[in-house]
Amino acid sequence: MADSSKLIALDWGTSSLRAYRLGHGGAVLDKRALPWGIMNLPVVEASAAGSQAGFEQAFSEACGDWLRDVPDTPVMAAGMVGSAQGWREAAYLDVPLRVADIGAGLTTVPTRSGAVLHIVPGLIERGALPNVMRGEETQVVGALEDGADDELLIGLPGTHSKWVHIAGERFMHFDTFMTGEAYAALSSHTILGRTMQRGANFNPQAFERGVRVATDSAGINGVLSTIFSTRTLGLTGALDGAAQADYLSGLLIGHEIAALRGSRATARLADDPRIVLIGDGKLCERYHRALAIYGYTNVGVSAQATERGLWKIAVQAGLVRQD
Amino acid sequence: MADSSKLIALDWGTSSLRAYRLGHGGAVLDKRALPWGIMNLPVVEASAAGSQAGFEQAFSEACGDWLRDVPDTPVMAAGMVGSAQGWREAAYLDVPLRVADIGAGLTTVPTRSGAVLHIVPGLIERGALPNVMRGEETQVVGALEDGADDELLIGLPGTHSKWVHIAGERFMHFDTFMTGEAYAALSSHTILGRTMQRGANFNPQAFERGVRVATDSAGINGVLSTIFSTRTLGLTGALDGAAQADYLSGLLIGHEIAALRGSRATARLADDPRIVLIGDGKLCERYHRALAIYGYTNVGVSAQATERGLWKIAVQAGLVRQD
Repeated sequence: MADSSKLIALDWGTSSLRAYRLGHGGAVLDKRALPWGIMNLPVVEASAAGSQAGFEQAFSEACGDWLRDVPDTPVMAAGMVGSAQGWREAAYLDVPLRVADIGAGLTTVPTRSGAVLHIVPGLIERGALPNVMRGEETQVVGALEDGADDELLIGLPGTHSKWVHIAGERFMHFDTFMTGEAYAALSSHTILGRTMQRGANFNPQAFERGVRVATDSAGINGVLSTIFSTRTLGLTGALDGAAQADYLSGLLIGHEIAALRGSRATARLADDPRIVLIGDGKLCERYHRALAIYGYTNVGVSAQATERGLWKIAVQAGLVRQD
Repeated sequence: MADSSKLIALDWGTSSLRAYRLGHGGAVLDKRALPWGIMNLPVVEASAAGSQAGFEQAFSEACGDWLRDVPDTPVMAAGMVGSAQGWREAAYLDVPLRVADIGAGLTTVPTRSGAVLHIVPGLIERGALPNVMRGEETQVVGALEDGADDELLIGLPGTHSKWVHIAGERFMHFDTFMTGEAYAALSSHTILGRTMQRGANFNPQAFERGVRVATDSAGINGVLSTIFSTRTLGLTGALDGAAQADYLSGLLIGHEIAALRGSRATARLADDPRIVLIGDGKLCERYHRALAIYGYTNVGVSAQATERGLWKIAVQAGLVRQD
């Protein structure tokens, strides 16, 4: 049967839960989005409560009907559901790591429905300043085209942007930049927000002006200093209130890409490596513009990375057959 | 009369108003602190209202009695009271600037009491990323010892830290770092605050560990990246919750000093220039520790810089006699 469920795939993060019913070859047969992130679980009546009742309830709403229809469908989840604050902690795997080895590290949780939930492990890169990810590893797996690239850089812009260096079918290294969350905190909770006029259309000139700050000597003092120019360019009449949010966005993303260019990840790469972006379309478009200013020309965007990644890891783990 | 008022000096900022009654030679005869910063003015009854009624009321509470006692005492103010949101905008003076020329740039405001308020101008350094200050210029003047130094670097740590390069009795250049405000926004409004245990005593080891991040290769990705280590060192058990706030504080201050070291200001200075810090005692102590880690050994702290600066600018302007 062409539309028979082969895998139920959950993208279970901090603030939301997305569920996919996948069929033959990983085709998406059905999908739904719920607000039940691990920090926002449904409240369950006291009589039914237990420490995991909220997770059980969210799980049931996400895929209980799909499991009743096809009871033995395997279920996989990636994201913060595997963190210490999640349903069950899925131990980190150490980078460097073979991409093909992620599926061997699944953590299982028996659920009230009888189905077993398989949770994808996060990745950790130890060192003086350790780095971690949960969920992005699955997106990276989904974005990789088998045998297509020996080496590439994968960018996952967002609250905590990740940049992942893949070479020889291994996770070699990754970096984190808190660009999205820093932008939100600076624009909502510092003086920089006071003169910003929100709700304006995207202003590419203001954004690119911000991006360029870190490209030259004006940016050498670093982001703690350059962000103040959002205010002073306003004070001197050189930057309208309606342009300030996009200027600040460009400025932060520019510092991120300038740092990335000098980082361990890119130091090992060619001058203009293949780059694949994964994430929100509008945000990827901003990064695409910023990368162009820094001389990166070989940039693409990957779609459906999460559900494709969950499928590929399920194949690795032997939970489903590729074809 | 030894305790006769020679000058009323107001330090009038965004969130507070400090008033000093100064006597012969600038000696502090009396002082008081009021909550009437320009963003927090007293509410005045509608019958008495006007656009400046709140400023008039605050002014009266700050020094009305002192003016009644000695009616012709000149009155000076420095700080955000001279901004576009203040009582009257005092135009910025351009840096580079002779220190002795500030007193020629006062803006006057007639007050209801009959006294004239003299407002100290702020400073601006134009360029691709303009810099501004209001209030700090007065503190810098107060910290300078006549003829004592041909060249020095003055640091004013705080919400928006300023670093001012003085040479040949001129303001040559200054930088701004939003370190204090960024710390507040990051620790209160991002994930980094979630695992921080507040209220612990100052932890010098955690602070210095943070300071050192920007001294070596671990810091090359810049502050948007390194701040994430506050969380990951916690996740890996390498940094207690009670140590995370001081670690983040050190990390940001370390990035500030690392940037300063490579900036235009210090590039023109000797390797270990004389540095004078002005500001809150505990914060100056943190900067003193951080500067030591970056090899700066010639660091002092200036006290009473604001009231001394207001006195010296009043002398420059001919409002009072030095002796």
